[in-house]
Amino acid sequence: MANFTVNWGIVGPGGIAHRFADAITVVDGASLQAVASRDQHRADAFAQKWNPPTAYGSYEQIVDDERVDAVYIATPHRFHHENTRMCLEAGKHVLCEKPITVNARDAESLFGLARDRGLFLMEGMWTVFLPVYRQVREWLDDGAIGDVHLMTSTFGFVVPRNLTGRMLNPALAGGAILDMGVYNTAISRWVVGRRPDSVVARAILGETGVDELTSVSLQFGAETVSQFTTTMLCQTINDFTIYGSDGHIRIHPNFWEAGVATLSQGDHIADVQRPVRHNGFEYQIEEAMRCIDRGLTESPVMPPVATMDTMETMDQIRTRIGLSYSFE
Amino acid sequence: MANFTVNWGIVGPGGIAHRFADAITVVDGASLQAVASRDQHRADAFAQKWNPPTAYGSYEQIVDDERVDAVYIATPHRFHHENTRMCLEAGKHVLCEKPITVNARDAESLFGLARDRGLFLMEGMWTVFLPVYRQVREWLDDGAIGDVHLMTSTFGFVVPRNLTGRMLNPALAGGAILDMGVYNTAISRWVVGRRPDSVVARAILGETGVDELTSVSLQFGAETVSQFTTTMLCQTINDFTIYGSDGHIRIHPNFWEAGVATLSQGDHIADVQRPVRHNGFEYQIEEAMRCIDRGLTESPVMPPVATMDTMETMDQIRTRIGLSYSFE
Repeated sequence: MANFTVNWGIVGPGGIAHRFADAITVVDGASLQAVASRDQHRADAFAQKWNPPTAYGSYEQIVDDERVDAVYIATPHRFHHENTRMCLEAGKHVLCEKPITVNARDAESLFGLARDRGLFLMEGMWTVFLPVYRQVREWLDDGAIGDVHLMTSTFGFVVPRNLTGRMLNPALAGGAILDMGVYNTAISRWVVGRRPDSVVARAILGETGVDELTSVSLQFGAETVSQFTTTMLCQTINDFTIYGSDGHIRIHPNFWEAGVATLSQGDHIADVQRPVRHNGFEYQIEEAMRCIDRGLTESPVMPPVATMDTMETMDQIRTRIGLSYSFE
Repeated sequence: MANFTVNWGIVGPGGIAHRFADAITVVDGASLQAVASRDQHRADAFAQKWNPPTAYGSYEQIVDDERVDAVYIATPHRFHHENTRMCLEAGKHVLCEKPITVNARDAESLFGLARDRGLFLMEGMWTVFLPVYRQVREWLDDGAIGDVHLMTSTFGFVVPRNLTGRMLNPALAGGAILDMGVYNTAISRWVVGRRPDSVVARAILGETGVDELTSVSLQFGAETVSQFTTTMLCQTINDFTIYGSDGHIRIHPNFWEAGVATLSQGDHIADVQRPVRHNGFEYQIEEAMRCIDRGLTESPVMPPVATMDTMETMDQIRTRIGLSYSFE
């Protein structure tokens, strides 16, 4: 990637944007050009920490900035669709936080737009780019655990009862499945490389109407099931285990940011350490830049079909548990 | 239990009967009086090892033996109903291997018969009598993990492809849920002390038509879900974790015979070792004898309602996955 540079803009200076800005500092050729918030004070505060040349008080301004090549969308997912659309229409490449949108229909329209404009668009499913996941992929491809029959995983935390915050507020597309379960859904899909044929789910809907616990079972073909629970009601162990006919792979907690996996083949058990280089976000940034450099509109590692499979699965999960949002 | 003795008979001298006979040797007041098989040679071989005074070549003979007070039913579960019925009708107390029958209807009729005759009948759900489960019960009763919201567990082994054996043969009521999943179902019920209000399940049915993998989600009331998978297709981790609002309890592998549990409350993590005294079966034998001594027809620890809840849940699971047996 020598000499190739990408000037990044960030839309939405929340917690995850800090992590992104931090990762940019270790990626060759990446620079932070601008940050934008609807609130100039928040943009300024973010800029004070990460020193982009410009801090904008509106999203319109950042997409008009010709020095910005690509935008990282870090707003609550309720707004991903409109924010990403605005960036693409202004000719910017986009890396959008997951879930890319609230539903599959919106995601499809964004990928169509990116293709039409010849722009790169990827959902920020950073987990699949982590070194430990490359090791897991190797094990799976080598048949180290035989035929995959079962996956089990959890993603749960005790979420503070802030009813208007993004986790619990239906106006912000709150709920466990979209915010956390997107990882279990996406990694299940990533393991088998295809969309589930059947989706079963149940949920505990809380006082605001969003899912505070969702238990899901996905079936892929005739031979493989993924079973997981995501919840805001309890701290779960948060590992991801892949069981095959000849052994199993356990991705250690927290699986979405893991640096360790265990391969068990009968009595032969091997722990593999694959720590991230910095904070883990650097790999997805490098992937985006590699694709942009090559003029690709999609990543071969995290292509639109992977995102669409996950979004359609989450649509089905929400249908099963009776969760829709008034703005949809 | 000083001076109180029970002379046990065993029906069905298979692998689990050896474990039972072994446990009898360490229980005060328990003696093995007789063993019965449809095959005199198998009965004799068993008797050579465990030295009961008598080895019968038919079940009719053992129930006619007046020296036998109580019978342990250790045949394949397909035959539990008829074997248990024969014993009760002959005036014997019965401890019957789990699952007590193939379906709830048969179980209900057996408990009715035992009550009518004033005889003791219990399903051999030995797990709930283990010392580590008494510790778990204490933690739950003390509110150590707050409100229980989620349980996750697995019970899986790679089962050899013997299509006529009890695991895979539909004529023997084969399948994962009845043979192994009965533990996940019963322990889920044991944790919350009630029947699930809703049952969701999916299965992979194999070449013989029985379930080789079944994934289940049970909901108890508005607040608690148990999610588990039982399978013959892969070796799973086989632990049982109970998640609450304030922490979690992990019953270590194999959960159904566990001697270790971990209580996690935030950063405070405590492993508790509660090894079994002998092979773990001694506790259910002691419970049966305590009840028989007191003239009880049911165990307060593992009462008919617990067995019936589990059987009815498994009936529903089998309805969901489309598994019935031709002899039902």
